[in-house]
Amino acid sequence: MPKTKAARPAKPRAWTEMATHLVDVAMGRKPADLVIRNGRWVNVHSGEIIAGTDIAIAGGRFAYCGPNAGHAIGQGTKVVDAGGRYLVPGLCDGHMHVESGMVTVTEFCRAVIPHGTTSMFIDPHEIANVLGLAGVRLMHDEAVAMPINVHVQMPSCVPSAPGLEHAGAELTVADVAEAMSWENIIGLGEVMNFPGVAANDPVMSGEIAATVRAGKTVGGHYASRDLGLPFHGYVAGGPQDDHEGTRAEDAIARVRQGMKAMLRLGSAWYDVASQIKAVTESGLDPRNFILCTDDSHSGTLVHEGHMDRVVRHAISQGLKPVTAIQMATLNTAQHFGLEREIGSIAPGRLADLLIVSDLAAMTIDEVYARGVRLAKGGKLDIDIPAYDYPKTAKNTVRLGKKLKAKDFDVAAPKGANEVRVRVIGVIENQAPTRALEADLPVEDGLVGMDRRNDVCQIALVERHRGTGGVTNAFVSGFGYMADCAMASSVAHDAHHIIVVGTNKQDMALAVNRLGEVGGGVVLFSKGKELALVEMPIAGLMSDERAETVAAKAEQLTEAMRKVGCSLNNAYMQHSLLALVVIPELRISDVGLIDVTTFQKVDLFI
Amino acid sequence: MPKTKAARPAKPRAWTEMATHLVDVAMGRKPADLVIRNGRWVNVHSGEIIAGTDIAIAGGRFAYCGPNAGHAIGQGTKVVDAGGRYLVPGLCDGHMHVESGMVTVTEFCRAVIPHGTTSMFIDPHEIANVLGLAGVRLMHDEAVAMPINVHVQMPSCVPSAPGLEHAGAELTVADVAEAMSWENIIGLGEVMNFPGVAANDPVMSGEIAATVRAGKTVGGHYASRDLGLPFHGYVAGGPQDDHEGTRAEDAIARVRQGMKAMLRLGSAWYDVASQIKAVTESGLDPRNFILCTDDSHSGTLVHEGHMDRVVRHAISQGLKPVTAIQMATLNTAQHFGLEREIGSIAPGRLADLLIVSDLAAMTIDEVYARGVRLAKGGKLDIDIPAYDYPKTAKNTVRLGKKLKAKDFDVAAPKGANEVRVRVIGVIENQAPTRALEADLPVEDGLVGMDRRNDVCQIALVERHRGTGGVTNAFVSGFGYMADCAMASSVAHDAHHIIVVGTNKQDMALAVNRLGEVGGGVVLFSKGKELALVEMPIAGLMSDERAETVAAKAEQLTEAMRKVGCSLNNAYMQHSLLALVVIPELRISDVGLIDVTTFQKVDLFI
Repeated sequence: MPKTKAARPAKPRAWTEMATHLVDVAMGRKPADLVIRNGRWVNVHSGEIIAGTDIAIAGGRFAYCGPNAGHAIGQGTKVVDAGGRYLVPGLCDGHMHVESGMVTVTEFCRAVIPHGTTSMFIDPHEIANVLGLAGVRLMHDEAVAMPINVHVQMPSCVPSAPGLEHAGAELTVADVAEAMSWENIIGLGEVMNFPGVAANDPVMSGEIAATVRAGKTVGGHYASRDLGLPFHGYVAGGPQDDHEGTRAEDAIARVRQGMKAMLRLGSAWYDVASQIKAVTESGLDPRNFILCTDDSHSGTLVHEGHMDRVVRHAISQGLKPVTAIQMATLNTAQHFGLEREIGSIAPGRLADLLIVSDLAAMTIDEVYARGVRLAKGGKLDIDIPAYDYPKTAKNTVRLGKKLKAKDFDVAAPKGANEVRVRVIGVIENQAPTRALEADLPVEDGLVGMDRRNDVCQIALVERHRGTGGVTNAFVSGFGYMADCAMASSVAHDAHHIIVVGTNKQDMALAVNRLGEVGGGVVLFSKGKELALVEMPIAGLMSDERAETVAAKAEQLTEAMRKVGCSLNNAYMQHSLLALVVIPELRISDVGLIDVTTFQKVDLFI
Repeated sequence: MPKTKAARPAKPRAWTEMATHLVDVAMGRKPADLVIRNGRWVNVHSGEIIAGTDIAIAGGRFAYCGPNAGHAIGQGTKVVDAGGRYLVPGLCDGHMHVESGMVTVTEFCRAVIPHGTTSMFIDPHEIANVLGLAGVRLMHDEAVAMPINVHVQMPSCVPSAPGLEHAGAELTVADVAEAMSWENIIGLGEVMNFPGVAANDPVMSGEIAATVRAGKTVGGHYASRDLGLPFHGYVAGGPQDDHEGTRAEDAIARVRQGMKAMLRLGSAWYDVASQIKAVTESGLDPRNFILCTDDSHSGTLVHEGHMDRVVRHAISQGLKPVTAIQMATLNTAQHFGLEREIGSIAPGRLADLLIVSDLAAMTIDEVYARGVRLAKGGKLDIDIPAYDYPKTAKNTVRLGKKLKAKDFDVAAPKGANEVRVRVIGVIENQAPTRALEADLPVEDGLVGMDRRNDVCQIALVERHRGTGGVTNAFVSGFGYMADCAMASSVAHDAHHIIVVGTNKQDMALAVNRLGEVGGGVVLFSKGKELALVEMPIAGLMSDERAETVAAKAEQLTEAMRKVGCSLNNAYMQHSLLALVVIPELRISDVGLIDVTTFQKVDLFI
């Protein structure tokens, strides 16, 4: 942890408790804590950029925004000269999963604050699959402790595919109703079971109703290109936004129905350029568009940025800077009912703002949240102490036994000399898989692999209840050429362990190693550990800093290349192979799953 | 009361109770109640107009909006062919006072529904000054019973000017906090005590805090041209909208500060044309603009219209029709946190819509609310039974005695032959008055009037507590030439009786007549009643139909002309002469008030 450079900003008091003080400061009766002078006010309300603006801040909130805050300067007021630079509201990420960065909320904040993100709407869907409501609560409580605004969307679909897998936990309608009373819960996380909504699945409609009754926002996830009845049924069911659109027509359809189109630029999502044409070419009202990242790897955060990157990209697609900034500030705040709190530089709001020297390039010089400078010149300016996760959040990788090579034996049907098996075919840069087939040799009654044709073994090892259960199958597409195995306890969405290997001994070593360190990703080759990213928190998140995690992840990628895998984003492909909601063929603790028919299928054909 | 033509629409069930049915209808599993085919969908979300749109309605809400609702038509589904006409969301009046129409909420609704108004945000400020919280509750409960959406803003400033007058009641911070839990209370009514907000008056800051804690909207009223510190102090105090701006710069200043600029076209307010230039000339983002009427007389409702008139006017000033409609639909809904309920034609919302044959002219053919047709061709299509006000709401004119001519005697200082007195000077078409002076004769120890110079008597007669108190003074500007007196129990904001007359006998007759009928406006000349508009409900509202009230009001205007008064809007001028918050000279039960210094002054100089 870095040493403290500045005081940590206090949790802001409610506006209702601060209002009279703000009035006193605005009227010049009491001094401001901070006055920023001579800025160009990027006014997301009016859509203007107003030169020569002064801003007075008190108690972590804006008290005065206007031509001259001289009257608010008194003894003890810190005065900053913006020197004509832009004053931009702190950026909001409208939907994202912290776990995708493999780090804690704290480390995620440390990584993104220098990039101007001061509000995040996080859906702790992954930890919910491991630890259930208690896991959501842990990340919620960490969120509350942050020096920026981390609002939590209650995960809606845990497990993702009831009956096709057993996750570490299950969330119910009652859980959702309870969570709605928690301090930082802002709504329901992306409702992914879109056929369930259109079919009036009682869990889906119950969770949505509980959210609406609480006056909170229902997040959507309509991952289909069908804009016919299933889409209309989904809309009628209540979700209010959607980030799964990929085409301009997707965005247009959502906005027409009164939903917010969330446009996503994540580490592996590139959905802004195509959909923003709904505004830049079709002329739709931009107020309905919100920018988000959904999933950012630690490497992206460290090397490319976060919401600054998204806004910069949106501007590069032809939006006026102030319009792009509205999509990452005011539009987001309004969508979540937080317009009085965040999303603009205006009296009463939390004093979250950026000093920006080049607007189109989003060159962020300084980042303030709640009136305290948190970063300057891309470097964090404060300490955020590591959040202490309890023991219950660690040691979640319960194998029940030490795995041996023979746990990965695939017995052939009696008497067979060769078998035809189903093989999960990885498609580079795409989430869907192919349902392939292969003829494999049999030796001593066991099915062998076919390295020449890139068919190796995959296994899903149950890790929540220590059942010792192992599902064995075959996979193609990674290109492993050497004896090796890679194992990961990040295995969407149930997050068992997926191990892929050309060598059963390495497979056992890799899985056992994850059992030792409480989860993460590890690569073994010929009995030797080539790379390891430890993720002891729920087997999903590191407790190290984002830079460290990014470096370890890069080491892993490098090691994978050494053993023959040069697939782009190979780790992500690996971690998605148990995602039994996306076609065609997947693996789960239940068995091999055909995700076109949503049925378990036999390995042998 | 007209005879029933159609079933009265039921109060709609909460969305949470209807959602699964809406999904069933959207998916074609259950039939819609009503399908409207082949309309041009005025889509206030996207800003488009989409031809060839079908709409399916069930349970009073939109279930499906798209190219083909054929699948939602079943047995019992009513099908309407829009024949290519426009489908426009029902119009919202963002801020208004029902009492200004001199009719009940029910009669107001009867008058405005054919003009396309399906949602009103009413501030029952006048009845609150007479009956206090109980009066607010009465109008609230009437509002709940309406077939359109009547949301109630809790009055914030009762009395308007504590210390300078005694109203019939007082509202406290505790009253505001209580009202926030009532079903149809949507926020706090215009906070008129703008110096109080900037001065941190505890009643103002307490009421605002109670409203914000309840998650509701704080209405503003900053009736000053000063955009300096007092404005900034007011903004910091929390009001979220303002309808008192008159210049483009007023609208711009409010929007920049994160407030909504409410642009008003009432019977006597013409503030749209000047302020809309903030959009049409300065290019501000139109999402921050909301249209409203504030005050509409019954004559305006009957002869000119309501929100249709405002939208038509806004279009005539150069707004795109869909932009003007957004300002009377979606923008209003979002401002009050009702985007899921009203303000657009989109799934889930209450099925409030208009079939319009000419968009720029706002020619409204049919009006639907909650899926039921309420009006066609400008005529109401349903019955709305009169709302039964209890006895406590009537007989509120308590004079304590029968007034005689000598109650209006003004005794001269002892021994004086002539006196110099302060005179309230009426300015045509303006709310402020002038503090004039006049030399008046003395006869038998009493001060006489000066009809030649248009100086006659004015008196404020206490009517809430039956104290028998009479404040006598002089007024100029009405031009009464004959023996006459006009009395009104509508006398903003405390609503005592104001009587203006050239003849004390007529003054006594006029006041006593109001005591008999429970309030209203009456004109006597030479002992004869020339015109009367009875307003038995709180002395503020008639229990007759808007057309009847409008006719009686016209008769009153005609009668006033006969006795010499040809002032435009003379009745309004009359009723504002006790408004002790607007300069320069006013009358109250406390005495003659100098509203430049906010002090009581002597009649004699």
